[in-house]
Amino acid sequence: MNRLLICRLLGLIALLIGGSMALSLPWALPLFGQTKHFEAASFFALLGSMATCGLVGGALMYVGRRGKGQTLYRREAIAVVGLSWLLATLLGALPFWLSETCIRIDDEGNRVRMGIADGIFESASGFSGTGATVLTNLEASADPDVPSLVPRAILFWRSQTHFLGGLGIMVLFVAILGMGSAGKALLLTEMPGPSQESAHARTQRAAATFAMIFVLLTAVLTLLLRLQGVSWFDALCHAFGTIATGGFSTHNDSVEHFHSVGVEMTITVFMILACTNFTLLYYLLLRRPGKLLGDLEFRVYLAVMAAVALMVILALRFDGHYDDQGHWTRYSLADSVRYGLFQVASIMTNTGFGTDDFDRWNSFSRGLLVLLMFVGGCAGSTSCSIKVIRHILFFKILWLELEQVFHPSVVRPLRLGDKPLEDPDIRKDVVMYFGVIVLIFVIGWMALIALEPDSTWIEAGQPAGDKLIDCASAVAATLNGVGPGLGIVGEAQNYAHFHWPGKFVLTWMMLLGRLEVFVLLVLFVPRFWRGR
Amino acid sequence: MNRLLICRLLGLIALLIGGSMALSLPWALPLFGQTKHFEAASFFALLGSMATCGLVGGALMYVGRRGKGQTLYRREAIAVVGLSWLLATLLGALPFWLSETCIRIDDEGNRVRMGIADGIFESASGFSGTGATVLTNLEASADPDVPSLVPRAILFWRSQTHFLGGLGIMVLFVAILGMGSAGKALLLTEMPGPSQESAHARTQRAAATFAMIFVLLTAVLTLLLRLQGVSWFDALCHAFGTIATGGFSTHNDSVEHFHSVGVEMTITVFMILACTNFTLLYYLLLRRPGKLLGDLEFRVYLAVMAAVALMVILALRFDGHYDDQGHWTRYSLADSVRYGLFQVASIMTNTGFGTDDFDRWNSFSRGLLVLLMFVGGCAGSTSCSIKVIRHILFFKILWLELEQVFHPSVVRPLRLGDKPLEDPDIRKDVVMYFGVIVLIFVIGWMALIALEPDSTWIEAGQPAGDKLIDCASAVAATLNGVGPGLGIVGEAQNYAHFHWPGKFVLTWMMLLGRLEVFVLLVLFVPRFWRGR
Repeated sequence: MNRLLICRLLGLIALLIGGSMALSLPWALPLFGQTKHFEAASFFALLGSMATCGLVGGALMYVGRRGKGQTLYRREAIAVVGLSWLLATLLGALPFWLSETCIRIDDEGNRVRMGIADGIFESASGFSGTGATVLTNLEASADPDVPSLVPRAILFWRSQTHFLGGLGIMVLFVAILGMGSAGKALLLTEMPGPSQESAHARTQRAAATFAMIFVLLTAVLTLLLRLQGVSWFDALCHAFGTIATGGFSTHNDSVEHFHSVGVEMTITVFMILACTNFTLLYYLLLRRPGKLLGDLEFRVYLAVMAAVALMVILALRFDGHYDDQGHWTRYSLADSVRYGLFQVASIMTNTGFGTDDFDRWNSFSRGLLVLLMFVGGCAGSTSCSIKVIRHILFFKILWLELEQVFHPSVVRPLRLGDKPLEDPDIRKDVVMYFGVIVLIFVIGWMALIALEPDSTWIEAGQPAGDKLIDCASAVAATLNGVGPGLGIVGEAQNYAHFHWPGKFVLTWMMLLGRLEVFVLLVLFVPRFWRGR
Repeated sequence: MNRLLICRLLGLIALLIGGSMALSLPWALPLFGQTKHFEAASFFALLGSMATCGLVGGALMYVGRRGKGQTLYRREAIAVVGLSWLLATLLGALPFWLSETCIRIDDEGNRVRMGIADGIFESASGFSGTGATVLTNLEASADPDVPSLVPRAILFWRSQTHFLGGLGIMVLFVAILGMGSAGKALLLTEMPGPSQESAHARTQRAAATFAMIFVLLTAVLTLLLRLQGVSWFDALCHAFGTIATGGFSTHNDSVEHFHSVGVEMTITVFMILACTNFTLLYYLLLRRPGKLLGDLEFRVYLAVMAAVALMVILALRFDGHYDDQGHWTRYSLADSVRYGLFQVASIMTNTGFGTDDFDRWNSFSRGLLVLLMFVGGCAGSTSCSIKVIRHILFFKILWLELEQVFHPSVVRPLRLGDKPLEDPDIRKDVVMYFGVIVLIFVIGWMALIALEPDSTWIEAGQPAGDKLIDCASAVAATLNGVGPGLGIVGEAQNYAHFHWPGKFVLTWMMLLGRLEVFVLLVLFVPRFWRGR
């Protein structure tokens, strides 16, 4: 294990994160109309965070200075990816801690400052593209005594962590690890390019292409939102949240705030694009849309989304939902389509934006949306969760297994389209991934139930009897990078009421889900660190 | 596919079921003090059922008369096992339908007769050893206007289906299919006997041994219960329910009725024994207890039960539960141990007897018990559910996988104790089983939520908001053969309030879980029935 190289690369990442904080600085100034006065506290908090990142990064670079120019092997790559996410989570929490960001106002009317667990939770949620938040009152409420609890510059940093995390996933994870033996079978579609290219050059080119597409999508979405009258601040923050399939908004009522079908449809299209295999999007840029339209995973992805959306729309139209006054009522067909489509796309792509409180929909829709959290988008995208390709392979394997029950000697190859998958381990790997996700879901669920006292529900004004299902939805929403769940963590609620042990559990869920479990788990295997 | 042989064997099973109904007949007579008057309706219902079984069995035997003496291959064995369970479920429902058994008294005070779905549900629950019931008022209630809704002879038949189902599993399933390539690796411990024995003779001897142990355990438990003052009727019925890990009781408040620590402890010990690998029990009978005590699965099984029991007991002692009046209160240490131990053993062995309403315990205990439903006992026993050995193998495979992430070239063999498991498919098979169980659980959950209207909860006086978790627990409790779940199907409730589509879904869950999914699923694969 080449620890010097790892230190050096982590140092580089710390410097990059520190440097990128400069983008959040201007929003503390009254230049862009986002704040009426100079937000001194958050300005200096960001400066302090940048200095800390610089110190940490410099120190790591200095320790690892002799690691320069050495080769990055598989084990080092895994260590860098895993550790860089942990490091980013800590560094990203600095602006929250140093500024006077508050999470809520307690019963006595006092502002509750962001604690250690809150900062780490919010930072992990940002970098992992989850979008679960502990913050309330992102903007001034109707009550004049309750101004915004979060400075604008901090709000921008929060959304910016989505951008950094999404970029990191596409470059660090998909490009470096996804090109390995295991990931290759899942990504399937090879990047177009010279076939004589070395593996190293191919990886570098893939990383660069993915980063380019990621930035391009963000830029285009920002412009499209701006053209529809959204301010630059909101347009940028929502573009960050959409393309990284994160879901942090700058408004208390998320995308509902804009009251614009156009904005909602634009964001829906880009959520869907962000969860499409970036290699296929690259083909689209090369004007070869056939690759995209003919891709099995992409077609199943759209088909599942359409089928679920149809079921939810029918449920909304013909069964109903609870309105603001708690009455059971029905939407018109137009509203059913509007809210149903957006919410299904938002949940399936693991973004988590909201235009309606889906926790007030009927049980069938709520259950379906929780299940949909476990589907996710395509491999090779910013989507978190299990991903469509694994579901396709799972059902194919199941079908082959059924035949093996009565014909044990007949062994058919696993096919995808017209290509047989030759890797003998792929069956075991795909099925194992389901098992591990369920195992982690179950462990997280029990840990959250055990650590979070029942009184949390009573304090939040929620029925305590919902603890089991609320905790299940909270773990599902964080493990799959969605954000909002049911009940106490529903669309109109957030994670502010949880205590630090519960937040700690959910923080791990977000990181485990984002890094597809194994990359983080192996860091705790002693043998991983031993030997050459 | 030799269909004549299948018909012949199914006919034999129908005749056996019909013949065994004779055992329930005497309880309709006032001979044993169980009923004060001659229960004519149920007596003739049983006679009619016997005649129907005889007709069906005779017809099947006649159709398949030329199948005599032919060889039973793997595919035919699977078909016989799967179809015989479906046939038994239908035939077993006859006494319920023909007698005037009622499931509940509705709001207007009218008795609700057992419908088609009710009879099938109750019969499937009995044969599969689930113990989920649609019947209320098994005995006269305190209200003099509400006598027992279920005749004694029918009550005996209901418990007897447990006995027949348990025997069937040990003989048909464990012995015939478990000795195949897939089951062998899970059962592991070879039956003692001459090593030169043919596979056929070995299977026959295993089946006979298992049946002998099953009957022996039932007889010993009946005697032990009788010695503690339980009537012959109750002793027999509860022995049937215990050894088949079923859970049908003859009293409204299940085992709590006896108010006897001795009875509870006796039943606990026999529930644990019934979920132990019967091969190991055979070694015990041969006075070689070392095999049992040294068995990894048995030790993990006891360790898991002890660990969960400890956690539940601590939660009962130091957190508390809701009492009859809805107040939050705590048990003494002695009561915590008494109720906690019995309930954990009852749930983990998938029996489902109750001595306390665990739905009023704290969320942690309730969540833990629902998870425990998925553990079950040892392979080669009457236990339903996933079984301990698969969990052991799953964690071993996971550990090996973790190393493969950073050392893809290192392949270590899967070991159990000191024996390496040489079957290359065992990893895939074990992990696949988890995936399939989760898949079926999820499909069952969504189907139940969609088919069962919200009004069911309101009619049953339960909060409608609990639908998601109640349905999840109902599917978990039936798929794993437990019986009681949470909320509307909790320990003090039952499945009477569900409508027929919901009961239909849950009936399939019981049968799928009992036959370890694949045996029943392949019956729906067209290719299974085609060709030689």
